[in-house]
Amino acid sequence: MRILLLNGPNLDLLGEREPDIYGDDTLGTLEAELAVQAEGLGCALRSVQSNHEGALIDAVHAARKDCDGIVLNPAGYGHTSIALRDALIAVRLPFVEVHLSNLAAREPFRHRTLTADVAVGRIDGFGIYGYHLALDALVHHLRARAAAYSEKN
Amino acid sequence: MRILLLNGPNLDLLGEREPDIYGDDTLGTLEAELAVQAEGLGCALRSVQSNHEGALIDAVHAARKDCDGIVLNPAGYGHTSIALRDALIAVRLPFVEVHLSNLAAREPFRHRTLTADVAVGRIDGFGIYGYHLALDALVHHLRARAAAYSEKN
Amino acid sequence: MRILLLNGPNLDLLGEREPDIYGDDTLGTLEAELAVQAEGLGCALRSVQSNHEGALIDAVHAARKDCDGIVLNPAGYGHTSIALRDALIAVRLPFVEVHLSNLAAREPFRHRTLTADVAVGRIDGFGIYGYHLALDALVHHLRARAAAYSEKN
Amino acid sequence: MRILLLNGPNLDLLGEREPDIYGDDTLGTLEAELAVQAEGLGCALRSVQSNHEGALIDAVHAARKDCDGIVLNPAGYGHTSIALRDALIAVRLPFVEVHLSNLAAREPFRHRTLTADVAVGRIDGFGIYGYHLALDALVHHLRARAAAYSEKN
Amino acid sequence: MRILLLNGPNLDLLGEREPDIYGDDTLGTLEAELAVQAEGLGCALRSVQSNHEGALIDAVHAARKDCDGIVLNPAGYGHTSIALRDALIAVRLPFVEVHLSNLAAREPFRHRTLTADVAVGRIDGFGIYGYHLALDALVHHLRARAAAYSEKN
Amino acid sequence: MRILLLNGPNLDLLGEREPDIYGDDTLGTLEAELAVQAEGLGCALRSVQSNHEGALIDAVHAARKDCDGIVLNPAGYGHTSIALRDALIAVRLPFVEVHLSNLAAREPFRHRTLTADVAVGRIDGFGIYGYHLALDALVHHLRARAAAYSEKN
Amino acid sequence: MRILLLNGPNLDLLGEREPDIYGDDTLGTLEAELAVQAEGLGCALRSVQSNHEGALIDAVHAARKDCDGIVLNPAGYGHTSIALRDALIAVRLPFVEVHLSNLAAREPFRHRTLTADVAVGRIDGFGIYGYHLALDALVHHLRARAAAYSEKN
Amino acid sequence: MRILLLNGPNLDLLGEREPDIYGDDTLGTLEAELAVQAEGLGCALRSVQSNHEGALIDAVHAARKDCDGIVLNPAGYGHTSIALRDALIAVRLPFVEVHLSNLAAREPFRHRTLTADVAVGRIDGFGIYGYHLALDALVHHLRARAAAYSEKN
Amino acid sequence: MRILLLNGPNLDLLGEREPDIYGDDTLGTLEAELAVQAEGLGCALRSVQSNHEGALIDAVHAARKDCDGIVLNPAGYGHTSIALRDALIAVRLPFVEVHLSNLAAREPFRHRTLTADVAVGRIDGFGIYGYHLALDALVHHLRARAAAYSEKN
Amino acid sequence: MRILLLNGPNLDLLGEREPDIYGDDTLGTLEAELAVQAEGLGCALRSVQSNHEGALIDAVHAARKDCDGIVLNPAGYGHTSIALRDALIAVRLPFVEVHLSNLAAREPFRHRTLTADVAVGRIDGFGIYGYHLALDALVHHLRARAAAYSEKN
Amino acid sequence: MRILLLNGPNLDLLGEREPDIYGDDTLGTLEAELAVQAEGLGCALRSVQSNHEGALIDAVHAARKDCDGIVLNPAGYGHTSIALRDALIAVRLPFVEVHLSNLAAREPFRHRTLTADVAVGRIDGFGIYGYHLALDALVHHLRARAAAYSEKN
Amino acid sequence: MRILLLNGPNLDLLGEREPDIYGDDTLGTLEAELAVQAEGLGCALRSVQSNHEGALIDAVHAARKDCDGIVLNPAGYGHTSIALRDALIAVRLPFVEVHLSNLAAREPFRHRTLTADVAVGRIDGFGIYGYHLALDALVHHLRARAAAYSEKN
Repeated sequence: MRILLLNGPNLDLLGEREPDIYGDDTLGTLEAELAVQAEGLGCALRSVQSNHEGALIDAVHAARKDCDGIVLNPAGYGHTSIALRDALIAVRLPFVEVHLSNLAAREPFRHRTLTADVAVGRIDGFGIYGYHLALDALVHHLRARAAAYSEKN
Repeated sequence: MRILLLNGPNLDLLGEREPDIYGDDTLGTLEAELAVQAEGLGCALRSVQSNHEGALIDAVHAARKDCDGIVLNPAGYGHTSIALRDALIAVRLPFVEVHLSNLAAREPFRHRTLTADVAVGRIDGFGIYGYHLALDALVHHLRARAAAYSEKN
Repeated sequence: MRILLLNGPNLDLLGEREPDIYGDDTLGTLEAELAVQAEGLGCALRSVQSNHEGALIDAVHAARKDCDGIVLNPAGYGHTSIALRDALIAVRLPFVEVHLSNLAAREPFRHRTLTADVAVGRIDGFGIYGYHLALDALVHHLRARAAAYSEKN
Repeated sequence: MRILLLNGPNLDLLGEREPDIYGDDTLGTLEAELAVQAEGLGCALRSVQSNHEGALIDAVHAARKDCDGIVLNPAGYGHTSIALRDALIAVRLPFVEVHLSNLAAREPFRHRTLTADVAVGRIDGFGIYGYHLALDALVHHLRARAAAYSEKN
Repeated sequence: MRILLLNGPNLDLLGEREPDIYGDDTLGTLEAELAVQAEGLGCALRSVQSNHEGALIDAVHAARKDCDGIVLNPAGYGHTSIALRDALIAVRLPFVEVHLSNLAAREPFRHRTLTADVAVGRIDGFGIYGYHLALDALVHHLRARAAAYSEKN
Repeated sequence: MRILLLNGPNLDLLGEREPDIYGDDTLGTLEAELAVQAEGLGCALRSVQSNHEGALIDAVHAARKDCDGIVLNPAGYGHTSIALRDALIAVRLPFVEVHLSNLAAREPFRHRTLTADVAVGRIDGFGIYGYHLALDALVHHLRARAAAYSEKN
Repeated sequence: MRILLLNGPNLDLLGEREPDIYGDDTLGTLEAELAVQAEGLGCALRSVQSNHEGALIDAVHAARKDCDGIVLNPAGYGHTSIALRDALIAVRLPFVEVHLSNLAAREPFRHRTLTADVAVGRIDGFGIYGYHLALDALVHHLRARAAAYSEKN
Repeated sequence: MRILLLNGPNLDLLGEREPDIYGDDTLGTLEAELAVQAEGLGCALRSVQSNHEGALIDAVHAARKDCDGIVLNPAGYGHTSIALRDALIAVRLPFVEVHLSNLAAREPFRHRTLTADVAVGRIDGFGIYGYHLALDALVHHLRARAAAYSEKN
Repeated sequence: MRILLLNGPNLDLLGEREPDIYGDDTLGTLEAELAVQAEGLGCALRSVQSNHEGALIDAVHAARKDCDGIVLNPAGYGHTSIALRDALIAVRLPFVEVHLSNLAAREPFRHRTLTADVAVGRIDGFGIYGYHLALDALVHHLRARAAAYSEKN
Repeated sequence: MRILLLNGPNLDLLGEREPDIYGDDTLGTLEAELAVQAEGLGCALRSVQSNHEGALIDAVHAARKDCDGIVLNPAGYGHTSIALRDALIAVRLPFVEVHLSNLAAREPFRHRTLTADVAVGRIDGFGIYGYHLALDALVHHLRARAAAYSEKN
Repeated sequence: MRILLLNGPNLDLLGEREPDIYGDDTLGTLEAELAVQAEGLGCALRSVQSNHEGALIDAVHAARKDCDGIVLNPAGYGHTSIALRDALIAVRLPFVEVHLSNLAAREPFRHRTLTADVAVGRIDGFGIYGYHLALDALVHHLRARAAAYSEKN
Repeated sequence: MRILLLNGPNLDLLGEREPDIYGDDTLGTLEAELAVQAEGLGCALRSVQSNHEGALIDAVHAARKDCDGIVLNPAGYGHTSIALRDALIAVRLPFVEVHLSNLAAREPFRHRTLTADVAVGRIDGFGIYGYHLALDALVHHLRARAAAYSEKN
């Protein structure tokens, strides 16, 4: 099983921004830790981060060739990008949406994401630990689906 | 650490309703499995389910005496109960909100819960597996908080 | 055929409230009259009234074991209870919604009920006579469904 | 007692449209059956159907001379015709509104009708059986009103 | 100068409906009185009333050939007919909109008419006297326009 | 009969502002012309103009002692002044609201006035000629009311 | 005169929650103090508190037999319970609504209560002192009503 | 293949209204040109225009007997007629919606039509050339559908 | 302690307007009675009433020099005056808002005041008795604040 | 005449996504077919596709130097990109907007595009055939404009 | 060039209110400093401040006789005064709107002013320095306009 | 002090677009003039322009290393980019927002920017002169902040 970890805008600043809240792990460290967790779960993890909406869409397109699912933190684009939503629908890969903060406790324009309703599920509010939960949840989902599929056939 | 597992209306029908989707585990089985997981994490789990809004509030009140956190699936009351929200704020216990289905993919009146913005975080869409993630996340949160606290003092 | 007659909050005051409009039949009398009508239609009628949302949900759950359909006047909870709606969907029993008054002629917050769109149909504005129409309609619906079913098999 | 049965746009296609749902009775058959039911209730029934909003208003005006009440299915015009509403108010005839489908379960623009709040009551969701309920309800209403009136005088 | 007096739905019932408020003049009487007033102002008045939206549009179209302006009471269609609005714009005839009642004091759906913003002006709340004011205002407007025109040329 | 002509903010600039549209009559000239018209109708006219909301309210209060009705152009305060509305209701004097321009054709915040629904009626779009119509309409209304009153007693 | 003091959800925690703001009086103490005040005013006070919406409705129903008025703090149910509103209307007892905090200064969903418009009046923002004001106001109201009644008869 | 060309209100004025924009072709000329184009595409074209909503509905009903598809310019009724929408759904004929002007550039009440979401597609903004595109598109659609159908069988 | 009693527009008519409801006390009498109550509470009361928004703001500004708190009935300006709200915030004096009628039972535009959320609390629906409650509440608040202050220091 | 064919995000997946609906033509094939059609119409066609909003804007800017018009499928950016709209306005090139699906039949957030009201016209719902119609329509528009221009000069 | 500096309600408290934020300059000091700046720019500055909406309107009217432009801080009236807006439009003087605080960062009812869209431009968030920017901007605008005018003539 | 001048989409066309309004200065010229002004103020200015949202975010990120503040014209992205807003918050650099046109006078979707409430202040409507004001304001702000800081320490 191959998983794409896809991080949206401003997540390249992780570890610099408010280290007292989220710890001082940088994005690099987080990606490394998740790769270890993935390996433990028998998966390979590929990581992409970009501040460019188009680059995120390109990465989703590319994933249809070599990935089985996506852990996605769309950050700010989650609230505004219909194009990203369309890309996710087009490639038909299951994905889990994760947010560092509890979106329901923030500005009204963050209460809805355009991607959540086509995700497998959503996890928010647990800081970087949310990524570990999301990876766990995605692998569980892919395995359950595979099991259900082989049971049928 | 003692955790309250609090389930709202209609969750007593778990396992009867659409077993092809959520598996045929009943609420009893789920509660037992979560108790085992809790034990593995060094916690004790107490379970309450009710179809009565007032009974859920009473349970939250009671928890302030003997629990450190709550895993809450408010079900239908999550969208309508300001009284439940007030109870959760009053007892000042950290809680994680979990939903079986992906609320963002359902009717508009389910897109917002009145409890989510005062929760630690929210997890939806992973079926009963979401409860395992929620318990994991709550324990992680309580430990991190305790660690931060002893570091300060 | 067994029918549940389920009455929501404040309907225990029937006959006391504005007898000049609805007649001075109490809830007891109405239940008795409907039981007679039911018998005439070859059905058994069981009656429940409660001012407690949770008790109504419990009654709906119980009905899944021994009833074929529900005549429901959700009263005030019809406008606010997603939990009641979920219970009705969960037990998969056909139900007819009835209201004493013409909801369209009252306050805006009564124009929509959260239960109506999952009902077989809705009857409002005919006072207590509406219950007789609702029982008639429900039995007709159950018979037509049974006929269609046996035709198919 | 004389009753006007007034059917709005597209109901001339009854019996052709989705016969598997509503049966294959045409509007003609329905009108005949309701005439029989009316006779059994001691009333005379006159039937009008039109796809023209103005023709429906003309029919309402005409009814003030020779009818005691109206069974009305305004169909699409129920949601848009203030002119039809005004006609019904102007002639001061009690009317019962009936719809084949359960409007609450359809598009949002069908959830409100401009005529319902000035009707005696509303019945929706029971297919053509709803007409029988509506006729029953209207006759019951007219009799109760007459009884109340003679009691007073 | 030729003026079209155009009355919309339900105005054929004038004089029958609430004579204690509007007097017991029928539409016929009103049309006759306005014809006299018109003559006094040196104009000819032609009157049309219909309950049919299409007939009102046809009348507006016809007016482009032989009228200089319109006194219009669109009644219920004023709130719903974009088609009538389009007809009035298309024929480019100045018109004055008049309503028997004070629309601002009635249901919210009567607060806006789709025709008023393309009218010369609007008069409401003065009962049938409003027609006299409207005819006066329209003739004044046509004369002022003609005067301004001849001044320019 | 004594009438108050009450003009709101910016109407002191009449005749200076866009004379090509409304003519070059100043407010003084208009008041004089209306006084003549009033005399012809057997009334006395008193005129007040102010740019101060409070002064308009004071004037309405004063009118309860010596006036029978008001011709009111509230101008900008018509859209925002609940206090002016309350004053008009408190003194219980019939008033006619008049606006120079056709409000329905202007910015959305001008489509509603807070005074119109408690007026006898409203006239808009006829420039300064609207004042003549309004005075005519008010006198007609006061006479009709007086006639109806003496008929009763 | 007999008064019901009716407290809604979470008010059983009074004195525990933020004692620095509201003082450390518990609900028991408050009830006792109000009983003393009532006695001073020549009334008897009966107190009920519940976290159950249905229990509050039952209490309102019961009050119609032995109380003359209600001091009501509906807490969270004030914003959501149409059923409670209906109960209050049904028993026709005058009631005064009181809230500890100034609702206008809190979340938007607290700005409106469904009970306030059928209350005699509302008092909010004065902490537990508001109950004393409310009891004072209710007794004043009941006396004024009684005085007006005996004056008439 | 037989096509109905159905034109709504005010389109009878085509060629008279703003000839500098749309050319001076009348509706007659347009119908003739489209008949020629239809012939070239191997179809027969029948044309109907009416200012009466009911007449348009009647025409749609009639088309179910002798047409394969409809080119529809509903004009003003497109924004307001649920009855017309229902007729189009009832007869189950594919139709293409066409508008002379670019509706997105006009008043907000023209941005949505009640018919567009049940059309095959929509074309707006190309003046009368839009009809040629619409006819082309409809014939293409009918052919593609027929081809897909014969391929399957 | 010095208190400002500040009354907004139209309250100068108190006692004239609907004496059957509010008694026939004029504003003068009310001010005198409140001065007596103030004296009994050990305070001095200064009274201002104006129909001018600016004069009310001036009075608030002046109060910062010689008053400890304000009893405010903003009347109509409460719903529209951001300037008055800003004045109250600027002078930092605690104030209690009082309304004669129950605003929640009146027109929607009266349900919100722009001043309430910065008040200590709000009292509405008790007629002129509400002023006595408000004065009582304000003095209680000022004393409690003073007590808390001296306790701290 | 030179035309730019500009395709927005996810259209690079054409032919892969749901080939049963849109055929299995890829974007490459479509571009080739349109180039042929363009040639037949005496035009040159240049094609650009990008998933990057900024790249689409750059392409629009570049077109002002060497194109006479644009066939634009903005895909997801059509609903969200004010920047793209501004680019189109800035370069003042006529463009035709085309969408594969019938947007009116999809999610509400697709009902409006920010580009449509500044386009010549819009075509939606005809799959890839819509591009052929759009090219046809654009060329027709450019020719008509050129003809009108030379007629004037 | 003569400039009017017009300050709205509560700005007379400048320097008293939160001196730590805006400095301890009073309105008098600010007016003096701006007069110096004006002189340096070759202009004369006249200053008016009032808490009365009507007085601000009067000042705008007066300015049409002796000023070339206005620096306006409408404060609270900017959000509510259509009358002030109308005055500014009527006198046709260019004005620059300035606010001490960043309105976008405050309550929603401050996000829009009724005057901004008819201003030359708006400056907010820079404290009293904003007035210096505004005066600079207004003079620049008046000079550019004069230059463009003389270039034309 | 180092300042970043950051210009969003379509500003590369400055000087080409409507030179009669904004003058014929290109973006290059403007950048040069602002560099001179910056130098005069003792600052260094670095300029970036991009049509790519992601590039603007990258530029904001880069600025955290070598700039003290930003003059930002976000153009179209100001209304839609939550990602850009998040970048500005993350880097914690003070910025001034500037717009060429007066946004309040344009389409409703331009009335709000997602960046303004986290800016120091906003300047709009003064054409390119606004940049000079913005640079002036930003430098003033940075100096005042530095002065306040050194005063404290």
